[in-house]
Amino acid sequence: MLGAIEAGGTKFVLAVSDDEFNIIERQSIPTTTPEETFEKVFKFFDQYDVSAIGIGSFGPIDVNLESETYGYITSTPKTAWEHTDFIGVMKERYSVPMGWTTDVNAAALGELTYGAAKGKHSCLYLTVGTGVGGGAVIKGEPVEGFGHPEMGHILVRKHPEDHFKGHCPYHGDCLEGLAAGPAIEKRYGKKAQELADTEEVWEIEAYYLAQALMSYTLTLSPEKIILGGGVMKQTQLFPLIRDEFTRLMNDYVQTPDMEEYIVSPQLKDDAGITGCLILAQRAL
Amino acid sequence: MLGAIEAGGTKFVLAVSDDEFNIIERQSIPTTTPEETFEKVFKFFDQYDVSAIGIGSFGPIDVNLESETYGYITSTPKTAWEHTDFIGVMKERYSVPMGWTTDVNAAALGELTYGAAKGKHSCLYLTVGTGVGGGAVIKGEPVEGFGHPEMGHILVRKHPEDHFKGHCPYHGDCLEGLAAGPAIEKRYGKKAQELADTEEVWEIEAYYLAQALMSYTLTLSPEKIILGGGVMKQTQLFPLIRDEFTRLMNDYVQTPDMEEYIVSPQLKDDAGITGCLILAQRAL
Repeated sequence: MLGAIEAGGTKFVLAVSDDEFNIIERQSIPTTTPEETFEKVFKFFDQYDVSAIGIGSFGPIDVNLESETYGYITSTPKTAWEHTDFIGVMKERYSVPMGWTTDVNAAALGELTYGAAKGKHSCLYLTVGTGVGGGAVIKGEPVEGFGHPEMGHILVRKHPEDHFKGHCPYHGDCLEGLAAGPAIEKRYGKKAQELADTEEVWEIEAYYLAQALMSYTLTLSPEKIILGGGVMKQTQLFPLIRDEFTRLMNDYVQTPDMEEYIVSPQLKDDAGITGCLILAQRAL
Repeated sequence: MLGAIEAGGTKFVLAVSDDEFNIIERQSIPTTTPEETFEKVFKFFDQYDVSAIGIGSFGPIDVNLESETYGYITSTPKTAWEHTDFIGVMKERYSVPMGWTTDVNAAALGELTYGAAKGKHSCLYLTVGTGVGGGAVIKGEPVEGFGHPEMGHILVRKHPEDHFKGHCPYHGDCLEGLAAGPAIEKRYGKKAQELADTEEVWEIEAYYLAQALMSYTLTLSPEKIILGGGVMKQTQLFPLIRDEFTRLMNDYVQTPDMEEYIVSPQLKDDAGITGCLILAQRAL
């Protein structure tokens, strides 16, 4: 039996599955303090005899196996969780192998194995919601180096008609500062979903996202780009992003067909937890 | 005995080595027509009994194993080489396993194994010269997906005092269009090396390169960034790039120390051919 935790900033999804990743039981719990949250995590997993646990966590996290703080959530804006030894706490309770990466790398792995990128060796998963976060798998492996991708913060060129200064506390007008849900809300004084019919909103949004996807494509060359998160529920964005991406790339690189290349998650809200189960199996 | 070809746009470097990558013989030949060049390649390798050949080629090339044109140089501006079945031609002459990736991916692999990133699992290699090209290795593997990285063409924000419109035939003012050697020459009417003492030149150059390195870092998280190529012989660029990178990143991501992170190639002109020899061994 495999265990998995998709540790998000607002909720944790806990699951156990058989060796073919068929989920036997799942539970969703709110992310409160580490003490309270881990108590619920223990209560869930104490019921089962899992052979490994895969964890995909909100970040930043330490994924460097050679680091003394491997397995920690590090300098997160969610201060209660800063410097939390996630893997340490889990290992103290369950002495089984554990997989560990970001929630978005886990989602990319899930989509690669059973979702929109099934049969491929690489994909990129970008979530556009409260923040912008990206993960990727290349040659079957989650992308990690000195740390993990933080794709949401790359720089983009300002749209000539956008006078919003950006809301990223670190970079002002980076991608997240200009294109995350809260940026849309601050720019127009309304929530994204209330602006569904205002064309300008989505043209500007697509302008930023397409630039970012161009940078990711030229850097990673993923076989598939999967766009999830609350803002992407505005599905009118997809054709706008594909058009802008095509215009920017100007036939320089022979990407897969746009309709096949820039797509929605197929596992929907299960991408992350599925990826975590795969991480668990790989940890064995 | 291992064979290697570093196939550059202006010259091919050919080499054979023992199994520990000690080069036994090497030769440099000009890149002319495929016919002439392959004739010289054959003349060189016909002398030896190699068990595998690794090739790092100028591009764009097809690296997708499932593609019908795997092993081809595809739509290169060097028209004589367009749609050249590089691996096919080589396999017809030598029926040994062959490794195949871009020249810059090979250079990254060389530096990872024996150079500036020795002991690491990941690095990025960017060459800034006639063009801007980048390769990377993540978890020991060259980065490839539907194709290979084309990092030189990512978009950057224009420096407020730079009025040069850029010279990339595809994107105008992408990184290569603004920061490659010919861009410097066209902007100032002088060659880069004649401008060594003009501070503004290098401030603008660092402004663009630092933005690109920030995007690569946030996307790939490489443990080391290695900057080579003719323009980087202007070593005054390194501190300028590190400072601008630090300013842009604004402590968002805990990168390695700047002096250790953004560095020169250690294998100098041998990075590529060394990477090709490693590719040969891996193909066995």
